[in-house]
Amino acid sequence: MRLRNRPWAKPLIEENPQYVVTEPEKLRGKWQERFGNENPIFIEIGMGKGRFIIEMAKKHPENNYIGLEIQTVAVGMALKKQLEAKLPNLQLVSANGAGLQEFFEENEVQGVFLNFSDPWPKKRQEKRRLTYKTFLEQYKYVMKEDGHLEFKTDNRGLFEYSLASMNNFGMIFDQVWLDLHDTPDVEDNVMTEYEEKFSKKGQPIFKLEAHF
Amino acid sequence: MRLRNRPWAKPLIEENPQYVVTEPEKLRGKWQERFGNENPIFIEIGMGKGRFIIEMAKKHPENNYIGLEIQTVAVGMALKKQLEAKLPNLQLVSANGAGLQEFFEENEVQGVFLNFSDPWPKKRQEKRRLTYKTFLEQYKYVMKEDGHLEFKTDNRGLFEYSLASMNNFGMIFDQVWLDLHDTPDVEDNVMTEYEEKFSKKGQPIFKLEAHF
Ligand SMILES: C[S@@+](CC[C@H](N)C(=O)[O-])C[C@H]1O[C@@H](n2cnc3c(N)ncnc32)[C@H](O)[C@@H]1O
Ligand SMILES: C[S@@+](CC[C@H](N)C(=O)[O-])C[C@H]1O[C@@H](n2cnc3c(N)ncnc32)[C@H](O)[C@@H]1O
Repeated sequence: MRLRNRPWAKPLIEENPQYVVTEPEKLRGKWQERFGNENPIFIEIGMGKGRFIIEMAKKHPENNYIGLEIQTVAVGMALKKQLEAKLPNLQLVSANGAGLQEFFEENEVQGVFLNFSDPWPKKRQEKRRLTYKTFLEQYKYVMKEDGHLEFKTDNRGLFEYSLASMNNFGMIFDQVWLDLHDTPDVEDNVMTEYEEKFSKKGQPIFKLEAHF
Repeated sequence: MRLRNRPWAKPLIEENPQYVVTEPEKLRGKWQERFGNENPIFIEIGMGKGRFIIEMAKKHPENNYIGLEIQTVAVGMALKKQLEAKLPNLQLVSANGAGLQEFFEENEVQGVFLNFSDPWPKKRQEKRRLTYKTFLEQYKYVMKEDGHLEFKTDNRGLFEYSLASMNNFGMIFDQVWLDLHDTPDVEDNVMTEYEEKFSKKGQPIFKLEAHF
């Protein structure tokens, strides 16, 4: 979803380079240095307004988290939350996830989260879907051998596509949920903005956990 | 589902050995001979009362169909339909699908259908599910290299399990449907007894088409 412009977003980002990275390629291979520890790094591509990645960073101080987002306005909104939370284990990145291999070295990442990614429903838009094979190649490259990908969506078409795409790529499925919020142990689940909206409407939330 | 006993079923089966095979191991490697042609053979494990396999046989006279079913009463009910339809390209088999490799030679089968298989929801019942790895091994053995498996169910838990089980076995997904009856081209779909019942209630029908 395209957010309307907020004039404050860009200046706010520029004022807070300690939290927002705008040239992630410069940190390639040096993210743990940036965090000042050797804790594992988890990334979300398309964090939107950042609720999920911020909650994760709060819940797991033993890990580092990086939220990538292509829309400057959304990054600005996530930054507002981070300016309140001041989490040392969270970095925001204003960039296109398509450049992942330029932002991270091979095996630099422990896990990847995709939450409610844009569905790009038309066949000719297939290449933009974050579960298209060129994206999967990137996740494979940046993730450690024992890393896992977690993907949540309310979009049936995108989930159907992604199950086949990830399977065809050779990914191994750990678990599939076809109605996450009607499943035992859902308490552990950290909700995203979209997830709250759609699950409140009673729509099933789909989830896939898989590895390479 | 266990059907209540019908005293007529067993005698009716015995009277119609031209349509019902009770010792399928004797036909191992000889099914095309039995059909009297070299058309490809498709099998359904757990055909129930036979609606699906009979409709398929009617719709595709260019193929041969075999419906396996463990419950004698259900075979009897399918036989009643076949006694009316008299389809030369349909054989019914009264047997447990767990013996598949004894009933069919390697590569003897073109395709396998699983429709609304018993869910066996408890963890300790996993081995009985028709998508458990020992069953998948059998399908792989009896199917030709270019053969496909088609699996439909209304049962969410079984479908979640089967996606992971088939993926973990190394099967390649052709297509996934998470609400078959709300999908374009559903007209081509041949309904089963269970499918009609559950889709009428508005429950989504899940489908997976995959190959080895
Ligand atoms: C539908 S929103 C979901 C936001 C959030 N993950 C949630 O679940 O509430 C998808 C987000 O992904 C972002 N996005 C889409 N493609 C992207 C890409 N290639 N790189 C980074 N972000 C992307 C969009 O700008 C948008 O903010
Ligand atoms: C829930 S019913 C579905 C019947 C039918 N396929 C339909 O969709 O209407 C499942 C059927 O599979 C049969 N079945 C279960 N396990 C089997 C096995 N191992 N071999 C053969 N049939 C089996 C059961 O007896 C039952 O008739």
